[in-house]
Amino acid sequence: MNLLIDDWKIIQDGFSKQKNRFFESIMSSGNGRMGLRGNHEEDYSGDTLKGTYIAGVYYPDKTRVGWWKIGYPEYFAKVLNAIDFIGIKVKINGENIDLATCRFSDYRRELDMKESVLRRNFTFFDPSGSKYEIKTERFLSYHESDIAAIKYSIKALNNDGELELLPFLNGDVRNEDANYQEKFWEYVSSSATESVSYLHMKTLKTNYNVSAAFTWNITGTDTLEKETVNLNNGEFVGTRIKVNIPEGRTVTLEKYISVTSDRYYETNEISKISQRKAQEALDKGYNSLFDAHKGKWADIWSMSDITIIGDAAAQQGIRFNIYQLNCTYSGDDPQLNIGPKGFTGEKYGGGTYWDTEAYCLYFYLGTRKPEIARNLLEYRYNHLEKAKENSAKLGTRGALYPMVTMNGEECHNEWEITFEEIHRNCAITYAIKNYTEYTNDESYLLEKGIDVFVETSRYWVSRVNYNSKKNVYMILGVTGPNEYENNVNNNWYTNRMVKWSLKYTVDTLKIMEENHKPLYKEAIDRLGISPDETEKFKEISEKMYLPEDKELGIFLQQDGFLDKDIKPADLLKPSDLPLNQNWSWDRILRSCYIKQADVLQGLWFLNDEFTKEEKIRNFKFYEPLTVHESSLSPCVHSILAAEAGYREKAYEHYLRTARLDLDNYNNDTDDGLHITSMAGTWMTIVSGFAGLRIKKGKLHLNPFKPESWKEYSFCLVFRDRIIKITVCDTDITINLEKGDPFDITLYEENVTVREGRNQYRR
Amino acid sequence: MNLLIDDWKIIQDGFSKQKNRFFESIMSSGNGRMGLRGNHEEDYSGDTLKGTYIAGVYYPDKTRVGWWKIGYPEYFAKVLNAIDFIGIKVKINGENIDLATCRFSDYRRELDMKESVLRRNFTFFDPSGSKYEIKTERFLSYHESDIAAIKYSIKALNNDGELELLPFLNGDVRNEDANYQEKFWEYVSSSATESVSYLHMKTLKTNYNVSAAFTWNITGTDTLEKETVNLNNGEFVGTRIKVNIPEGRTVTLEKYISVTSDRYYETNEISKISQRKAQEALDKGYNSLFDAHKGKWADIWSMSDITIIGDAAAQQGIRFNIYQLNCTYSGDDPQLNIGPKGFTGEKYGGGTYWDTEAYCLYFYLGTRKPEIARNLLEYRYNHLEKAKENSAKLGTRGALYPMVTMNGEECHNEWEITFEEIHRNCAITYAIKNYTEYTNDESYLLEKGIDVFVETSRYWVSRVNYNSKKNVYMILGVTGPNEYENNVNNNWYTNRMVKWSLKYTVDTLKIMEENHKPLYKEAIDRLGISPDETEKFKEISEKMYLPEDKELGIFLQQDGFLDKDIKPADLLKPSDLPLNQNWSWDRILRSCYIKQADVLQGLWFLNDEFTKEEKIRNFKFYEPLTVHESSLSPCVHSILAAEAGYREKAYEHYLRTARLDLDNYNNDTDDGLHITSMAGTWMTIVSGFAGLRIKKGKLHLNPFKPESWKEYSFCLVFRDRIIKITVCDTDITINLEKGDPFDITLYEENVTVREGRNQYRR
Repeated sequence: MNLLIDDWKIIQDGFSKQKNRFFESIMSSGNGRMGLRGNHEEDYSGDTLKGTYIAGVYYPDKTRVGWWKIGYPEYFAKVLNAIDFIGIKVKINGENIDLATCRFSDYRRELDMKESVLRRNFTFFDPSGSKYEIKTERFLSYHESDIAAIKYSIKALNNDGELELLPFLNGDVRNEDANYQEKFWEYVSSSATESVSYLHMKTLKTNYNVSAAFTWNITGTDTLEKETVNLNNGEFVGTRIKVNIPEGRTVTLEKYISVTSDRYYETNEISKISQRKAQEALDKGYNSLFDAHKGKWADIWSMSDITIIGDAAAQQGIRFNIYQLNCTYSGDDPQLNIGPKGFTGEKYGGGTYWDTEAYCLYFYLGTRKPEIARNLLEYRYNHLEKAKENSAKLGTRGALYPMVTMNGEECHNEWEITFEEIHRNCAITYAIKNYTEYTNDESYLLEKGIDVFVETSRYWVSRVNYNSKKNVYMILGVTGPNEYENNVNNNWYTNRMVKWSLKYTVDTLKIMEENHKPLYKEAIDRLGISPDETEKFKEISEKMYLPEDKELGIFLQQDGFLDKDIKPADLLKPSDLPLNQNWSWDRILRSCYIKQADVLQGLWFLNDEFTKEEKIRNFKFYEPLTVHESSLSPCVHSILAAEAGYREKAYEHYLRTARLDLDNYNNDTDDGLHITSMAGTWMTIVSGFAGLRIKKGKLHLNPFKPESWKEYSFCLVFRDRIIKITVCDTDITINLEKGDPFDITLYEENVTVREGRNQYRR
Repeated sequence: MNLLIDDWKIIQDGFSKQKNRFFESIMSSGNGRMGLRGNHEEDYSGDTLKGTYIAGVYYPDKTRVGWWKIGYPEYFAKVLNAIDFIGIKVKINGENIDLATCRFSDYRRELDMKESVLRRNFTFFDPSGSKYEIKTERFLSYHESDIAAIKYSIKALNNDGELELLPFLNGDVRNEDANYQEKFWEYVSSSATESVSYLHMKTLKTNYNVSAAFTWNITGTDTLEKETVNLNNGEFVGTRIKVNIPEGRTVTLEKYISVTSDRYYETNEISKISQRKAQEALDKGYNSLFDAHKGKWADIWSMSDITIIGDAAAQQGIRFNIYQLNCTYSGDDPQLNIGPKGFTGEKYGGGTYWDTEAYCLYFYLGTRKPEIARNLLEYRYNHLEKAKENSAKLGTRGALYPMVTMNGEECHNEWEITFEEIHRNCAITYAIKNYTEYTNDESYLLEKGIDVFVETSRYWVSRVNYNSKKNVYMILGVTGPNEYENNVNNNWYTNRMVKWSLKYTVDTLKIMEENHKPLYKEAIDRLGISPDETEKFKEISEKMYLPEDKELGIFLQQDGFLDKDIKPADLLKPSDLPLNQNWSWDRILRSCYIKQADVLQGLWFLNDEFTKEEKIRNFKFYEPLTVHESSLSPCVHSILAAEAGYREKAYEHYLRTARLDLDNYNNDTDDGLHITSMAGTWMTIVSGFAGLRIKKGKLHLNPFKPESWKEYSFCLVFRDRIIKITVCDTDITINLEKGDPFDITLYEENVTVREGRNQYRR
């Protein structure tokens, strides 16, 4: 592995064709509005996954499925590989630079996470022995999200040379995951002039219009020939530049790109705007753009950095996670969300999963202004009508949010997931509670969230069935978070969360009636809630059946779970793992092995409602059965292990996620990064090691430190404050970097955190 | 509906473009080796499903499935639409005959089931007002299964005319259900001469070679011009014949076709053979071929006819079923089997399902020589090695037969079916028991069947799990016959049949040890059976967990079934039916509604092992919950209803299947016919109304007669006898048409059936 460890950088030292996709993935970057895999600017004819992604621009690709079921969606949405705007074809002394075929040495590619810039350098040899040092640098501006800039430098080391540079835009791009191998884009217009070129493409079916324009500038040479290039009926435009380069000199091409779409501008304006912005970027110049960009990242790091002293790999790992989460979602547009692979690959189609509410929300709550997290909530509120349509399609009432979505419609079609993994509704309501409690901003809950609570409660009323013999409500035919069980009855997690969500609905309505009369009346009118209906919510919540085994003192994952052959996962042969690549599906299903936290997920979400003993008993029972074949699993185990006092276990689980992609733990980094599970890693440190909880609006900490670390610290944004918490062998230091003094609970004792540095003995 | 009722014929009176596919389906015919939908010989540009099928010639079409699981097959096999050999292009006075566009009247298409011949006639009008009467006739020889013959006659009614006739072979044919729209055939060779033409095509991937050749003869005219036609690079060959037809005269073209494949001949011989056979057919002449063909059908009807007096629609319906079953499977080749649609359409891909053993076997046992049924058993024996491979793929031992197959490999991929509907193994072992008991031929069981019993028993040993708490063996994660439940635990039917199959294995080994020492020793050596292993079979059989509800006195379809909201299907709104076209899959799964007999299937198979009271209690509980959305369901209900004494119920269920396709009950006859369920209809009369059972080798009858029928009779082939049983209001008549006198049990009393006519009071 030629990946080097560094505090702030991801470094590839030396080139490998075999590992090119891997490095492209981990060198991905983004600015919340667009993202790029770490592809080369110049041609590359070797194995590569080209990836240029524009947030929110997707294609509803007709799904291939053998056996259709009533209610299935027609399509599976795909995140789109869009106009290739980074491209620069480079010829030196007539030879095209293509690292799959040409001679070169000293290749290095590095992603500087602090400044969010991708740099490459290598030395190119032409057949006659002339050497040229190539340095490239590019960034996607976090300050102006329409802008990208590239600097491409060539130094003649031992001879004069002739260069031909062709910066271009190419619209003839495909998705590797296209079901029918077709192109998702059609050409609209383009033009190439010697100073600015643009290309306007439109997606098929969804009709998203995207325009990319670029300007350029060259330094280090006097001679210059240029001509415009327009190929493939306009889908490829650019400028061919020919210069001489004397020995010892460096020629530098700057390419300034603007990418606009009609998600933000009028359709017929986007090409004009992209050209104007590309021109303005050129006028500002590379350094000025870069400074503004770096400033934005400095802000982000000031709120979200985690430092780990004594473990450089862990330091690199956690920063990589924080970095990628911020590349994926900048939080200023409530129509956007967090795809499981972000802007780093095509897998999972870029849709929104429950990952957002169950994992990512914690990260954005803890490290950014509340508006950012709130926009994730607005996203679901905006999809409420579609969730009602989705429920109606399945023959139920109220709202069932989709398992995977781009625009509020369901776009996934395994029946056992789409139709049965209905606990997702509760992740969404739980996120509202979580947001409200963390930020103390009740306005979302009272004005919008209440609708989500009521409509999902209505879904539950129509989805449960009353068992008169046992006088309980049951939920039959579901898939819990553990997707290694399908179509089970009374999944404890689902039933327990439904019980909670119904109660929270009832309680919120009561609080509104008592304290927010006008909002209450509006809600009652808007939603047409009758007292009978609230009574029904209450009744179901109270009589919800919760399977348990009294003898073992555990909650039962589902009815009949103990009829399985229960053996710890430790006894599995290594050659059987991962199960999903070695066992047939029926074998997995009838086994006792658990893909990801299920009962334990409930103990984490409703953390306050269970005793420590209950947590310990269930953890001891379920953790040995869990194979963690979802990247979302270890973090919950780590947090609960920490709470239970199993510190080594907590650290062991942390290690499974911390460098998941960098160390290619699941052998799938080639496809892109596990963006949403990165939030889990963050949670592991903050809620696991440091024991962060919010109870009745108050911050609780209960930190410990993994043995092998010397010290760690993390920033937390909490109610207009920025707090930096440092944990070392002997002390806890809480630095109030911004905001007013406040009380927290540290190791179960109240302490007042004052301005500046507050130090406590561990 | 312009379908006329007739004892022996299926008659379409008048043409309907909208109903063309429907009539093409019900006019299908076959000779066990090939089959044809009722397509027109001349061109037809309207909506049509062209269907020419050659038994055993299939294509493994790569499946489209959204989400792959370990162990899934790569392909779904497709029955192939093959060389169009019936085609005759016809022009009269320059106008091409195409019933979708030309003017005609008095259309009639009829399938004579007694003689297995398809006839059509209509009157064609040319634009000038000249009228021509067209009569066609064709059959697929049951005597020589490579041969087909067509007679095409044109009579000039009111004017002279010019005819152009072009009999042809066309290899450019497609399947409608091709996943990737590609053609499954490639061209090998062809030639057209004035006397004989042939076309040799080969399937892609499977490399089946098929050659069709034809000769022809024309009568009723003296003038004649002819030229050979070779189009589309040889894929279309034929002879264009021009004749003058004087007013009042009839011109008749006879087309003699031979179709050969390298399933039966050497690849490089098939074209020579098909040409020779076509020449021989011409030499024999139409009438001679037809007589031999009719003779074969007379034999079949003598063994299998059912007559119903007093209900002409029922009479037509039952003969249609018997006819189609014989068209589909003639039983002389153990490599062939019975696809759910036979030779009548593409749906279900023509593969073999458990339908064969669970339903069809009864029919062939009861109406044909034992060799025919035995060949169905040989088919599975020949696939035993593949069944072992299939089991190994899923991580189990022994043999798991595929759910759908062409060559022994699994070719279906819904996980809940492929991986979990494992009860199919028991249908196969049960069929062996059934065959042995009916025919008294033990040789299959002792020489081959024992291997099937032992290897499937080994599968069960590796598939059950021992529950130490309850000291029972369980089978988790299965789908029972009721496919409206998926992934359930302890499906009673499955568990009960496994218990039976294991016991039968042990018992058979014991009998072999005692009475067939040499065969026993061979089996022990061949299979490597240890006493421990037999002991294990016995232990699992004895300790098999069988869910039941003591209070209700019923066997429980699966664990937790009574937790469902149990409401009779009568209360469903008609607009909800069929559920599978109106309800989402999860809603169906969590409902109590049953697709087809499940517990009741077990009570039918293991009929002897349950009391009448048990049957009645279970019937009363499950029958009201059953929606019969499988065509295989009503027959089992009818038989059990008859046994329980619910005669009206028995008749009601009979009506659901008897004319399923003719009356287009499920609105899907267009796709082809429900061949395998036709055997169920036969069973309804024979085992239901007449109460046929074989107990300890003895034939038991317990007949009743549906009120609305005057009389019914059926033939039975039983141990070298042909018996005709007639049931009228007052009497039972048993006519021993062939074979020795024997004892049967009639209404629980022993009677001796002597040669000729034996009459008993009811």
